[in-house]
Amino acid sequence: MTRVESLISAVHKPEFDILRVAHVELVVTDLDASVAFYGDLLGMIVTERTADAAYLRGWEEYLHHSLTLREGPVAALDHAAFRVYEDADLDRLEADFRARGCTTRWVTDELAQGRGLRVQDPLGFPLEFFHAMDEVERHTQAFHLQRGAPVLRFDHVNFHVSQPERAFAFWQELGFRATEYISTDGADERITGAWLRRKPTVHDVALTAGTGPRLHHFAMWLAEPSSVLRVCDQLAAAGHVHAIERGPGRHGVSNAFFVYLRDPDGHRIELYTCDYYTGDPDHPPLRWSVTDPRCRSFWGTRAPDSWYDESSLVLDLDGKPLETEPATVDERTEVMA
Amino acid sequence: MTRVESLISAVHKPEFDILRVAHVELVVTDLDASVAFYGDLLGMIVTERTADAAYLRGWEEYLHHSLTLREGPVAALDHAAFRVYEDADLDRLEADFRARGCTTRWVTDELAQGRGLRVQDPLGFPLEFFHAMDEVERHTQAFHLQRGAPVLRFDHVNFHVSQPERAFAFWQELGFRATEYISTDGADERITGAWLRRKPTVHDVALTAGTGPRLHHFAMWLAEPSSVLRVCDQLAAAGHVHAIERGPGRHGVSNAFFVYLRDPDGHRIELYTCDYYTGDPDHPPLRWSVTDPRCRSFWGTRAPDSWYDESSLVLDLDGKPLETEPATVDERTEVMA
Amino acid sequence: MTRVESLISAVHKPEFDILRVAHVELVVTDLDASVAFYGDLLGMIVTERTADAAYLRGWEEYLHHSLTLREGPVAALDHAAFRVYEDADLDRLEADFRARGCTTRWVTDELAQGRGLRVQDPLGFPLEFFHAMDEVERHTQAFHLQRGAPVLRFDHVNFHVSQPERAFAFWQELGFRATEYISTDGADERITGAWLRRKPTVHDVALTAGTGPRLHHFAMWLAEPSSVLRVCDQLAAAGHVHAIERGPGRHGVSNAFFVYLRDPDGHRIELYTCDYYTGDPDHPPLRWSVTDPRCRSFWGTRAPDSWYDESSLVLDLDGKPLETEPATVDERTEVMA
Amino acid sequence: MTRVESLISAVHKPEFDILRVAHVELVVTDLDASVAFYGDLLGMIVTERTADAAYLRGWEEYLHHSLTLREGPVAALDHAAFRVYEDADLDRLEADFRARGCTTRWVTDELAQGRGLRVQDPLGFPLEFFHAMDEVERHTQAFHLQRGAPVLRFDHVNFHVSQPERAFAFWQELGFRATEYISTDGADERITGAWLRRKPTVHDVALTAGTGPRLHHFAMWLAEPSSVLRVCDQLAAAGHVHAIERGPGRHGVSNAFFVYLRDPDGHRIELYTCDYYTGDPDHPPLRWSVTDPRCRSFWGTRAPDSWYDESSLVLDLDGKPLETEPATVDERTEVMA
Repeated sequence: MTRVESLISAVHKPEFDILRVAHVELVVTDLDASVAFYGDLLGMIVTERTADAAYLRGWEEYLHHSLTLREGPVAALDHAAFRVYEDADLDRLEADFRARGCTTRWVTDELAQGRGLRVQDPLGFPLEFFHAMDEVERHTQAFHLQRGAPVLRFDHVNFHVSQPERAFAFWQELGFRATEYISTDGADERITGAWLRRKPTVHDVALTAGTGPRLHHFAMWLAEPSSVLRVCDQLAAAGHVHAIERGPGRHGVSNAFFVYLRDPDGHRIELYTCDYYTGDPDHPPLRWSVTDPRCRSFWGTRAPDSWYDESSLVLDLDGKPLETEPATVDERTEVMA
Repeated sequence: MTRVESLISAVHKPEFDILRVAHVELVVTDLDASVAFYGDLLGMIVTERTADAAYLRGWEEYLHHSLTLREGPVAALDHAAFRVYEDADLDRLEADFRARGCTTRWVTDELAQGRGLRVQDPLGFPLEFFHAMDEVERHTQAFHLQRGAPVLRFDHVNFHVSQPERAFAFWQELGFRATEYISTDGADERITGAWLRRKPTVHDVALTAGTGPRLHHFAMWLAEPSSVLRVCDQLAAAGHVHAIERGPGRHGVSNAFFVYLRDPDGHRIELYTCDYYTGDPDHPPLRWSVTDPRCRSFWGTRAPDSWYDESSLVLDLDGKPLETEPATVDERTEVMA
Repeated sequence: MTRVESLISAVHKPEFDILRVAHVELVVTDLDASVAFYGDLLGMIVTERTADAAYLRGWEEYLHHSLTLREGPVAALDHAAFRVYEDADLDRLEADFRARGCTTRWVTDELAQGRGLRVQDPLGFPLEFFHAMDEVERHTQAFHLQRGAPVLRFDHVNFHVSQPERAFAFWQELGFRATEYISTDGADERITGAWLRRKPTVHDVALTAGTGPRLHHFAMWLAEPSSVLRVCDQLAAAGHVHAIERGPGRHGVSNAFFVYLRDPDGHRIELYTCDYYTGDPDHPPLRWSVTDPRCRSFWGTRAPDSWYDESSLVLDLDGKPLETEPATVDERTEVMA
Repeated sequence: MTRVESLISAVHKPEFDILRVAHVELVVTDLDASVAFYGDLLGMIVTERTADAAYLRGWEEYLHHSLTLREGPVAALDHAAFRVYEDADLDRLEADFRARGCTTRWVTDELAQGRGLRVQDPLGFPLEFFHAMDEVERHTQAFHLQRGAPVLRFDHVNFHVSQPERAFAFWQELGFRATEYISTDGADERITGAWLRRKPTVHDVALTAGTGPRLHHFAMWLAEPSSVLRVCDQLAAAGHVHAIERGPGRHGVSNAFFVYLRDPDGHRIELYTCDYYTGDPDHPPLRWSVTDPRCRSFWGTRAPDSWYDESSLVLDLDGKPLETEPATVDERTEVMA
């Protein structure tokens, strides 16, 4: 059993039930520009807009929002939010995080949402857990109104972490199951990427070795590959060709069809579709060697440097950007191989 | 050599050069409703609108219009127009039609167009030939503005003809080449459908045995099959589910992917994509037996009765609806087989 | 609160944890013909073949089989199987079904599978519950070997039930959650179709009002709509055009893109893709009126009579075809509306 | 009028009628490997194979071959062949090329083909003109047998030319019409790329500024964008990920969806679909500035250096590789811009 296989073999069944990753709140420096990007160009519904924030959702979503854009001086991730099965799960999570020595805080004034538990996780990431959110109308089949991609629903977050194995162990302790990972070859195997899930898709959370804690990207689900192609055509036609950073293409990991975009503040969003079912408890995690040119891009296309080097700052619970530290494993190994 | 093969074997090289079918002018009873259908729902560009007419084109077209909608009391085809290589071809065509004993007329006051030769062809159809038309901007890659299908360009017309063999011979005399046909089996072979082309696609003109002269449908070209599916989703979502008459599906004849719609007046439009190249002079015409369930719908789906029975009246050169006569061959044979 | 809403409002949390529907075993009268259909034409992997049976799976599946074809004298459903979270769930299920007065039986000699609990459910359907099955290699990305659709994984079963409300209550008691339903309008609301899920897709089990107990169809998941179109092209080209019964098209219910096929024995299989996420506990069930032409086919296409009238016999636990009874609600209401 | 516009404005109507580019003959160093690549992986039909050559065609083609692979010591283009309307056109072409001082030669022993006129054109390229070729069966709708992309038909050739303006003038004199071009900005405008057509698509022949004479690539037509994606999946799965050089993506020029592959000898083939109709005589050529990041890749993706630097040697009429000379315009301008 390899080092990573040992990490995976321990199945955790915590007392709380995290359903899935549900939304992110981004600090953006020009709210109008960001709303135009996510609403008009990518095709999300703007559920509500206030003086300094906008709340958006995908076309099949019935909860109030899956993306919050809040205007502020420094572009960053304010927090990534996870929905739990029932309100009482929040208390169990608070106890768990306190036992870890993590800072926790209750938030009760979020628009359209019940109480939220904010924590700074052991890796430094600002997480939120919540159960209640206002319901709004689904528009899954409002094809005549849809535009852009269109974006259907929130799918996952991907974090840049300096200590991949430590982050990997932490998320498994929260009840997440590994579905795929990339690691170095040889006896001193190191994780350079890992995908973990609660909902039975390839992931709710991915971990990428890199300077962190930072948000590498969040991802929205589209209906099918042709949606990915169409949004690229539309972005380029609308004068936003520089927003297209990587792809479109097929991932090796996850098998999904994807494109990575950069929003007006440089936040990275992946448009993502067609991964696979992972919900059985014995679902076997899939390992990729960092030397396999197909793991990141199944068709072998090298990701640009920016995709490896750049990602979004994250805020602490007081709204201050967190210091970062370089990765303990050279993630670029995989591209140099 | 069969009866139809004999008809095909004679290659005609007339003095004039018809490039392709270029547009139709439809009389519609509610111009606003028709503009909403073709412009907003199907996604055509409205180049210009006058008091009683609208001129539309597809997104890759640089000529002023490929569809004219003119408000009038009775829904009908005013004329189907063909573009010729040079202006002098019009005079040669006039001579040809006069020699046939057909009524001809010059029209010089059409919006954005040079002189047009109007004729009532031997089968009764109101045809127009023209060379000059105002050029406008192409918007092939204005993906961010496109909506609906979107419609890219005019592709073909399909006529309901009572005497298919006579019509077939006539169009060949104009220099059109047969690419495919459906015929009855046995010694007294009859044509029930025929496809003829000038531009090197499967057709500019198709002939369907049926009560005629009537316009069975005209067709617009889309980029790919997913465009056909999307416009169906949008029509149904927008409350126009009854506009979808037949399909989507794959044609046996032409191999194209298609859907047939009915506009607010019942005019039939086909959205059509992915046929094949036919431009070599020895391109072998393909015969289908009427008993082959795949000739009309490659997947075997029976067309609804309305698709066989209903089509648009055509006007004579004075704007009066033409009398029709029933077909001399029972076209329904193919569905009864 | 309507009658059906009352049925839905009661949330059941049974002691056992059914993960999902996992496979069906069909009795087929010509094993070679059936293997050719599912293996060669639709593109499933034949994991193993014995003297009288074949075990197939989709390309992303790592369990030994998701479709068993067993040769026998009368085409029928032998059983539909559901996977549970752990082996002990089987004992809890046995107790539950015994308490209902249902016949139960343990099966221990199934190829590549652990012990199975067979029951004849209150509606008469032969169900199996199991946990353990041999693991085999996944071929999710063996694109160069894939053929046909290709079929990726088992998705759902659809049962013809004579008493829809009774069946609906039963499946909810097993912990299934309703996602969509079709019902008659007015005070004496009746269910004519219902969709229930364990895994967070639109369904594991659907109920269609009709002469039952019979298997209406089972469904396999494809990657995307273009896969559905391709398999139709291939079936027609290979001379199996009559296997295509209904579609391709978009469902109103489920939003999925689909086609229904009939196998050589008339068993109906749906190829299905692109539904949506339903995994949150407050996911609101969606009601469709039987009078909405878009509920069965979003584009309004009427399903053929065979789709309503015909379905597969089911066997009792001794392998004898079960008597059927007509539906207590006229399901055809929806097409006559 | 700019310098390039002046070049375009002269319309040439030569005495001969070249229908279209029809095939290439490539010298390959390992015939088995090349047949496996084009036949099994890309999905072309091998019409015939001899001791040292293989003749392939696309699935909708009824002429004997559109690609000849001939084993030899040095990978190169033996010749690119153009079909003419009638046999007599060949004599007219011979006269034309002799008048230009070009070497010409008649070839009468080509498999399945009538007499061919071979010329070394003013830029050094080995061209063939022919009219007659054996007809074979079309398999447009043999979807059940198709594999790989599949490849449907030959579309175009793209030549690396050191003197773009001279080549541009030459092809126009043969009756080709410019549809699009890329040029430098400013008074001393230079062509860095040009697209010219006989059949009414975007091109039969493209010219790319670069070290020449060399064959940059030839292109085959696919049915739709999803075909391009599928062949990439299959190539990567089959262990040929390094064959994928650039794309998939949307071209700015031509609007086509494409991918560039390298065959076992490094010959470049483009799989290409969805360009537009260009057949009207007043079709306006479209100019792109070399500084527009969208002209080569509409989504802005930079082509790899190999795509600019590498291309196939061409042979003289005696089968000897031709000397090349560097381009007179720095084609890389467009990527450095």
